[in-house]
Amino acid sequence: MKTYRDFLIMRTEQKLEIRDITKEVSQVLAKSGITDGILLLFPHHTSAAVYLSDSDRSLTGDFGELLTRLIPEGAYQHNLSDDKQNATAHLKSLLTGHHLVLPVTEGSLDLGVYQTVYYAEFDGQRDKEILVKVIGE
Amino acid sequence: MKTYRDFLIMRTEQKLEIRDITKEVSQVLAKSGITDGILLLFPHHTSAAVYLSDSDRSLTGDFGELLTRLIPEGAYQHNLSDDKQNATAHLKSLLTGHHLVLPVTEGSLDLGVYQTVYYAEFDGQRDKEILVKVIGE
Amino acid sequence: MKTYRDFLIMRTEQKLEIRDITKEVSQVLAKSGITDGILLLFPHHTSAAVYLSDSDRSLTGDFGELLTRLIPEGAYQHNLSDDKQNATAHLKSLLTGHHLVLPVTEGSLDLGVYQTVYYAEFDGQRDKEILVKVIGE
Repeated sequence: MKTYRDFLIMRTEQKLEIRDITKEVSQVLAKSGITDGILLLFPHHTSAAVYLSDSDRSLTGDFGELLTRLIPEGAYQHNLSDDKQNATAHLKSLLTGHHLVLPVTEGSLDLGVYQTVYYAEFDGQRDKEILVKVIGE
Repeated sequence: MKTYRDFLIMRTEQKLEIRDITKEVSQVLAKSGITDGILLLFPHHTSAAVYLSDSDRSLTGDFGELLTRLIPEGAYQHNLSDDKQNATAHLKSLLTGHHLVLPVTEGSLDLGVYQTVYYAEFDGQRDKEILVKVIGE
Repeated sequence: MKTYRDFLIMRTEQKLEIRDITKEVSQVLAKSGITDGILLLFPHHTSAAVYLSDSDRSLTGDFGELLTRLIPEGAYQHNLSDDKQNATAHLKSLLTGHHLVLPVTEGSLDLGVYQTVYYAEFDGQRDKEILVKVIGE
């Protein structure tokens, strides 16, 4: 069994921004030399998330609006104890799901035709790290 | 380390349909010959999901109603660019969580007494594939 | 490849209670002797969940309130067939996400600085088990 560990460094221009990172993840997988197994995509933060969705970019707008409707700005306990006032960013990360486990087959991400890997940033405009851990052979 | 890759093919009668697939997943695991490790259950689609819940079927109705209440039909950006008009199907998949990682011990799925594996289809009536990837020994 | 299997036993004082279990998970990892790979944290129940969030405890209150707002008590089908009247507990577990896959590097959980592992109990005051499955080397 082989393992590989690397990071993707993210910096967004907006506070809430959703970005297609499929290509960047595939490049890290290629560097790993692992051709069969799984890839864990794990942001080292709690106000960001990774998720899978359709390649149609319009869905990222719909998803951002859904999260903002379910979790509007308001009087959260966390904002009394934290200067960053980012309670909704943490809660949006929780509903989105945080990390992904992706199948790896014959040296590639084993995704469906339209499946796209997205990075969802809910408290951006500063550097963040996504851990990539690959295990397999 | 051994790996195994297979597919479950799903076709639902309804647009929104939730189905117990525990037995089908166990059958694929038996074919794999892997007795200790993990099983990744990964739909190759973004308008379906797999999740774990109680064996009581009534909960699937409650869960479907919850998703429809949180994500009602409406004016989504995705529906302007896609003929299938299935924005809510994609968004329901996102809140449900898409894929599962299941423990494998002594040749079986290592689940709690009432734990049941469900396939949640949000845009059905056509063939869909669930990738099953097993790694272990 | 090595695998390791163990359980954390949980008993909460409240019906809905969220608890930091990062230290307990790290102790199981140390017992496993596995220093590089992944750790699957998998409650053997469908009315509890594990998730990652910020170390600030106030967020657990905000998250509990969010779940109760999205999934209020009401007339659920499950409550007609189950004496425990715990439909909302199951549905809260579904939106939270149930299980976690954590990276393991150099013998430790490979988490970000503020990342904390939480056990979310939605139908407590009785014994529950969290399966810990570690695979790696």
